[in-house]
Amino acid sequence: MARGCSCWTSLCRCFFEYETPKVLMIRSRKVGAVNRFIQVVIVAYVIGYVCVLKKGYQDTDSILSSVTTKVKGIALTNSSKLGLRIWDVADYVIPPQVENSFFVMTNLIVTMNQTQTRCPECPYSSVNCSSDKDCSAGFIDVHGNGVQTGKCVNFSNTVRTCEVFAWCPVETDSEPPNPPVLASAENFTVLIKNSVQYSKFKFSKRNILPEINTSYLANCIFNHTTDPHCPIFRLGDIVSEANEDFQKMAVHGGVMGIHIRWDCDLDLPDSWCVPKYTFRRLDNKDPNNNVAPGYNFRFAKYYKGPDNVETRTLIKAYGIRFDVMVFGKAGKFSVVPTLQNIGAGLALLGVVNIICDWVVLTFMKKRTMYKEQKYSYVDDFELLSEETP
Amino acid sequence: MARGCSCWTSLCRCFFEYETPKVLMIRSRKVGAVNRFIQVVIVAYVIGYVCVLKKGYQDTDSILSSVTTKVKGIALTNSSKLGLRIWDVADYVIPPQVENSFFVMTNLIVTMNQTQTRCPECPYSSVNCSSDKDCSAGFIDVHGNGVQTGKCVNFSNTVRTCEVFAWCPVETDSEPPNPPVLASAENFTVLIKNSVQYSKFKFSKRNILPEINTSYLANCIFNHTTDPHCPIFRLGDIVSEANEDFQKMAVHGGVMGIHIRWDCDLDLPDSWCVPKYTFRRLDNKDPNNNVAPGYNFRFAKYYKGPDNVETRTLIKAYGIRFDVMVFGKAGKFSVVPTLQNIGAGLALLGVVNIICDWVVLTFMKKRTMYKEQKYSYVDDFELLSEETP
Amino acid sequence: MARGCSCWTSLCRCFFEYETPKVLMIRSRKVGAVNRFIQVVIVAYVIGYVCVLKKGYQDTDSILSSVTTKVKGIALTNSSKLGLRIWDVADYVIPPQVENSFFVMTNLIVTMNQTQTRCPECPYSSVNCSSDKDCSAGFIDVHGNGVQTGKCVNFSNTVRTCEVFAWCPVETDSEPPNPPVLASAENFTVLIKNSVQYSKFKFSKRNILPEINTSYLANCIFNHTTDPHCPIFRLGDIVSEANEDFQKMAVHGGVMGIHIRWDCDLDLPDSWCVPKYTFRRLDNKDPNNNVAPGYNFRFAKYYKGPDNVETRTLIKAYGIRFDVMVFGKAGKFSVVPTLQNIGAGLALLGVVNIICDWVVLTFMKKRTMYKEQKYSYVDDFELLSEETP
Repeated sequence: MARGCSCWTSLCRCFFEYETPKVLMIRSRKVGAVNRFIQVVIVAYVIGYVCVLKKGYQDTDSILSSVTTKVKGIALTNSSKLGLRIWDVADYVIPPQVENSFFVMTNLIVTMNQTQTRCPECPYSSVNCSSDKDCSAGFIDVHGNGVQTGKCVNFSNTVRTCEVFAWCPVETDSEPPNPPVLASAENFTVLIKNSVQYSKFKFSKRNILPEINTSYLANCIFNHTTDPHCPIFRLGDIVSEANEDFQKMAVHGGVMGIHIRWDCDLDLPDSWCVPKYTFRRLDNKDPNNNVAPGYNFRFAKYYKGPDNVETRTLIKAYGIRFDVMVFGKAGKFSVVPTLQNIGAGLALLGVVNIICDWVVLTFMKKRTMYKEQKYSYVDDFELLSEETP
Repeated sequence: MARGCSCWTSLCRCFFEYETPKVLMIRSRKVGAVNRFIQVVIVAYVIGYVCVLKKGYQDTDSILSSVTTKVKGIALTNSSKLGLRIWDVADYVIPPQVENSFFVMTNLIVTMNQTQTRCPECPYSSVNCSSDKDCSAGFIDVHGNGVQTGKCVNFSNTVRTCEVFAWCPVETDSEPPNPPVLASAENFTVLIKNSVQYSKFKFSKRNILPEINTSYLANCIFNHTTDPHCPIFRLGDIVSEANEDFQKMAVHGGVMGIHIRWDCDLDLPDSWCVPKYTFRRLDNKDPNNNVAPGYNFRFAKYYKGPDNVETRTLIKAYGIRFDVMVFGKAGKFSVVPTLQNIGAGLALLGVVNIICDWVVLTFMKKRTMYKEQKYSYVDDFELLSEETP
Repeated sequence: MARGCSCWTSLCRCFFEYETPKVLMIRSRKVGAVNRFIQVVIVAYVIGYVCVLKKGYQDTDSILSSVTTKVKGIALTNSSKLGLRIWDVADYVIPPQVENSFFVMTNLIVTMNQTQTRCPECPYSSVNCSSDKDCSAGFIDVHGNGVQTGKCVNFSNTVRTCEVFAWCPVETDSEPPNPPVLASAENFTVLIKNSVQYSKFKFSKRNILPEINTSYLANCIFNHTTDPHCPIFRLGDIVSEANEDFQKMAVHGGVMGIHIRWDCDLDLPDSWCVPKYTFRRLDNKDPNNNVAPGYNFRFAKYYKGPDNVETRTLIKAYGIRFDVMVFGKAGKFSVVPTLQNIGAGLALLGVVNIICDWVVLTFMKKRTMYKEQKYSYVDDFELLSEETP
């Protein structure tokens, strides 16, 4: 029992022991100043950078967003091919809806009344021919519109090209019209509805702010200075805010980014959490490296004639794709990250000692005296025996 | 040589030196208790929060996901405009496929047999007129359907509106039918196929789990309690799980989020890694701020008549867009993050001393005695000379 | 005043005090070796892992990307249903454009000239009937194509099925053609244009590198070894790079991922920042669990006959959806993360002492001597009184 007791006592004693490092206090102007200066720098860093700038006392959540868009606008065009024609949303937004993105056609090349039959290929170097020998039946040219039949036929009075089995007549224009057909797309508007959620904080909001009423919404147009919270954007404004020229961009098309940023400090009132809109061009427009510029794609409208033969209208659509991207981070005070950052800051204060010790024991005049006071020595015999024979 | 030798020796000696702080061991119940308590708190935090909750011993990878969806269902409608009509997938899913999303039309306003010609504008305040003077040729109203011709014509026996060049007749209904046309969309089902990969761990899985066979898949419907792993969802269930009313939502449309969460601990058997489905409404439905509610868009089906004139059927489609979002993080034991977290935990233990020292040297009765033992002093002469003249 | 002065003096003195721990220097080969070894390990870790591998001295930014795609290729098919037919981009890419993704139809089941009327349901177990009693008017089968009328009619000479009101005739093929109709899609090419931005560093680049000129772009095809920077990809190559068989995949369809990785060290010349392309199959193709394989969807082309009756061609499209995913992180030297990592590294050096102390005071022969030198004791009376009665 006595032994068990002593065991218990020593455990007890061990449990109530507290180890604290013995400290040498140096009272010196120089050393003290260095010490305090480094301490101030680190405390300023911890408070200024971690706490104020990075808001280290907050728990954060990433954004959950849903975007819907609705374009409005009417364009009237008058071309030799199509005659007088009106264009509305159902005509120029293709496809009619997608997530986080919408495409507005600004220019087009139309090829009407195509049917599956034979016709001369569009003339370009590799398919120009002088006799049937230059064409090989069944050959599919990578830049062609169909399968060669092996005949050489007149494309026009002066040019002969290989005949192809294809949707005929083939598309012949290679460059889009300039000025663009739908130049008035500049005045189209788009209503962007964006709902965001920070699920960790049970916070949700949308970009149609509570103070916006129906009559304001019916007439407002976004403007950075006068109407920064109107969710209706004029397409021309979006492009010009990104320092681009709409009419130039409309010819070959392009990709614009609409960035909506919701950085919210939820320790502040909810009404301070408002979206910020910025716009930038996403595709390249470097004039020095202008290989394959713009944005276009082909689609077709299919018809059936009275004789049940399928015809189609092929449209090469040039236009601007607007990608809506929603960014954001919300922060709210929370105990755990606060303690973590305070802990990390205190741990960093330990670095002060390392730096100061180095300064004091290397550069100070009285470094030998400090050393003597700071260090005690235990010399291991083995090592000494080597050194002192 | 002797000097070189001594240099070498001192380098040797320096290399084999080990600095350990001198420690004052205080044996006191109070101090010890404070010390152990703070130590326990920090160790508990490191083990409990970092290791168990945050799984700090695991290396993590973010998810790579692919989603395909397939809606099934037939609806029968009977309206004065369209007559008896059957609707299948190709009719109500627009566009037929997109990445991570699908749209199901639940309500619609149809305007049939539109052609490009002149007709009276739909009557609303700004285009009502009494004579031609009220209309200006070439004017495009932002809320209108076409370009005004400058004439004032009869819209009906009682109302006169400005004539427009547009797709005529223009859409006249402003509110969608209630109850919704495709009310039975509630019973449509969608099969969601989701394959995920954690490439760092060479792990891949799909939401059609290995134990699901063809016959189960042919008949199951997802249910949180009875069929939590069936990848076929009834649209009505998705909406009601989010505490929404399908029939109400179907009138004006909306956006639903289908969240698939794959949080996998790959230290456990693979079969424990299963998806969790949650549903929520993403667009705003705040009744107090119900400006521009719901989700709709316009699209058209184009036809050509026997006289080669293009006509179209304009459809204003109201419906629910379902955005499938896949979240997930996988963790697996790895040496590097384990050591990092142990290191950070040990570094945090250094904070114990700072706190205990503060407690001991500020609040304890015997603080003067402790201080005497802990501190030695070196006074710099300069400072003393100022203080003691 | 005298007191105020002394207060001020003590504050001054306090301000210029510097605390440095008193240190016991142990000169021992064993202890020193252990110490240096652990120090070297930690320094190597900090330098090797944090600085070199993780580039801890760099500030990082995440990528902002825009992708546009353009598929090229012509296919000629000859089937009993459709006759000789040519397919171009407008025919097989559905929908014509989406963000970050494109779908190429490789196989299809066509059902032509459907109208809204009555016809026998496609024969499968549940709707086969022998008399009208087996069919119930108004019933919508979940796997059916329409609403049952209650009649039992001849589907063929041998099979009788329930009559349905539906888009008739109903789709009858259940399995897609093998080999696939558009087998030659293997030779289609796609031009992927990808512009990326690192806005924090005002850096932008696109995957058509500056050294690529128009003539190279007109003829090149991506190849990992010979043309690693050509942005034009042969679909067959994409699939085979992912170790899949295009012709097999084309039958039922699937989902392919095209990963573009832009990991850029912006401390190096800009021309070193080039995209890396990898390809992998994203949907599951596990032969053991082949429930609901592939990828397909239905869409329709709508026509109006001379009698103004709407007919449609229903197409069940099987094909490959290519999801383009852009990843990337850019780093550039910055002072703040460098200092943070050095600080964290130094803090980690404190762990050395903890480990060494443990080794020295537990395993060394002379541990008692070391302990005597390292520790001083202050015994609290209360505790002693308990122990020594």
